[in-house]
Amino acid sequence: MTTQEALFKYTLRLGDNGLIQGQRLSEWCSRGPILEEDLAITNLALDNIGRAQAFLKYAGEVEGKQKTEDDLAFKRGEREFYNLLMTELPIGDFAYTVAKQVLISAYEYFLYTELSNSTDEIIAGISQKAIKEVRYHLAHAKDWSERLGNGTEESKARLQKAYDELWSYTGEFFETTEEEKVLAPSKVAATTKNFEAKWNDMINEIFTISSITPPTAGWMQSGSQNGIHTEHLGHLLSEMQYLQRAYPDAKW
Amino acid sequence: MTTQEALFKYTLRLGDNGLIQGQRLSEWCSRGPILEEDLAITNLALDNIGRAQAFLKYAGEVEGKQKTEDDLAFKRGEREFYNLLMTELPIGDFAYTVAKQVLISAYEYFLYTELSNSTDEIIAGISQKAIKEVRYHLAHAKDWSERLGNGTEESKARLQKAYDELWSYTGEFFETTEEEKVLAPSKVAATTKNFEAKWNDMINEIFTISSITPPTAGWMQSGSQNGIHTEHLGHLLSEMQYLQRAYPDAKW
Repeated sequence: MTTQEALFKYTLRLGDNGLIQGQRLSEWCSRGPILEEDLAITNLALDNIGRAQAFLKYAGEVEGKQKTEDDLAFKRGEREFYNLLMTELPIGDFAYTVAKQVLISAYEYFLYTELSNSTDEIIAGISQKAIKEVRYHLAHAKDWSERLGNGTEESKARLQKAYDELWSYTGEFFETTEEEKVLAPSKVAATTKNFEAKWNDMINEIFTISSITPPTAGWMQSGSQNGIHTEHLGHLLSEMQYLQRAYPDAKW
Repeated sequence: MTTQEALFKYTLRLGDNGLIQGQRLSEWCSRGPILEEDLAITNLALDNIGRAQAFLKYAGEVEGKQKTEDDLAFKRGEREFYNLLMTELPIGDFAYTVAKQVLISAYEYFLYTELSNSTDEIIAGISQKAIKEVRYHLAHAKDWSERLGNGTEESKARLQKAYDELWSYTGEFFETTEEEKVLAPSKVAATTKNFEAKWNDMINEIFTISSITPPTAGWMQSGSQNGIHTEHLGHLLSEMQYLQRAYPDAKW
């Protein structure tokens, strides 16, 4: 893997994480439990899609085939997407979305903190903006986790179930990818192993304040770094890419 | 109709217009033709839901039955909604959404310009914020109308069809409602007839730059001021109010 190939795939993956997360969050747009949360989740979706746009634009430049961020978003097949599996899982109930957001936002908090100091100026720039957003996403998700975990019997049970179900998708967060091996030594990419322990500490603290029993570690899902996905991504893409498929390169 | 009843229904209707428009726009969240437009439409949805929240909060205070904006959004039946019929129509294709947004935003531009000077300070305050947003919505929609109208044969045909189909829903914009009769003399409410001609001029100018043949005036749809709606509102509400119906007043 050349440095250019690594940088392309690395930025593509960061973009895909934002894109797929943004799409999933936007499914909440008109279904939040209260108006305030409708607004909050929709803003969260916007932050993710904005970040996707920035990273995919850069990925297109790195690849050098004159592809725009829209080409990359709307004209790739499922096997060419590298988003973390957790991001593509269906939104589930509100507790599930909260748990997912806690796990991902905490990860992104450490990831973008490191990437804010990337030696690649464009990655650093996008990450400096991202970290401000992610700090808010994390605080918001943590707050809901605490509320649901200490709310009713039902809300607590649903939250516990959500964390239990999602746990096997957290292994991917800290896999050392081929791109990372190429790009981390020069500090272009982050070394995810470096913050795995910090992430675990933070999540355990959130479990404590949310009265949640930590899920037992076990077999971990894997695949997205090689473009292997759950059945859910295909459905999501067919909806997201519908306009492009129906009217390729339509100017209208 | 007492002044209080009129003020309740007037603010409720302004809120409902934002709420239903916001819900419809949010259906575009993950389906825009390009990422930039995904972001723009989602922002537009947010502006509308934010405005709905403000007006419904005020409506709840005016009614004096301790209902929150969420009670009003999620616990009313179809016949108690007063949004303009146009806002509840399905999103259709992108040209349809553009045409709808041109017609509504131009209307809201004049409406909120007048309401910015309402003698009711809360209506004036919300409207002063709204007018800034609506000015952008209008410019954005007008820009797309011009592009689609002067794009391909297909984009032009679709836009023309959209304007033709939507035209009969514009009559409601300028109906003099009972609330208006009560509240307009004291300048709490706007007198919509006052800006009907200005709205027509603006729309005709947009038709001209979009190479669109003005739809022929004919029979106009009506009903929303009495809570009578198209078949589409029921479906939208059942989706939007799903959580509340499934778990009434759930605290989680």
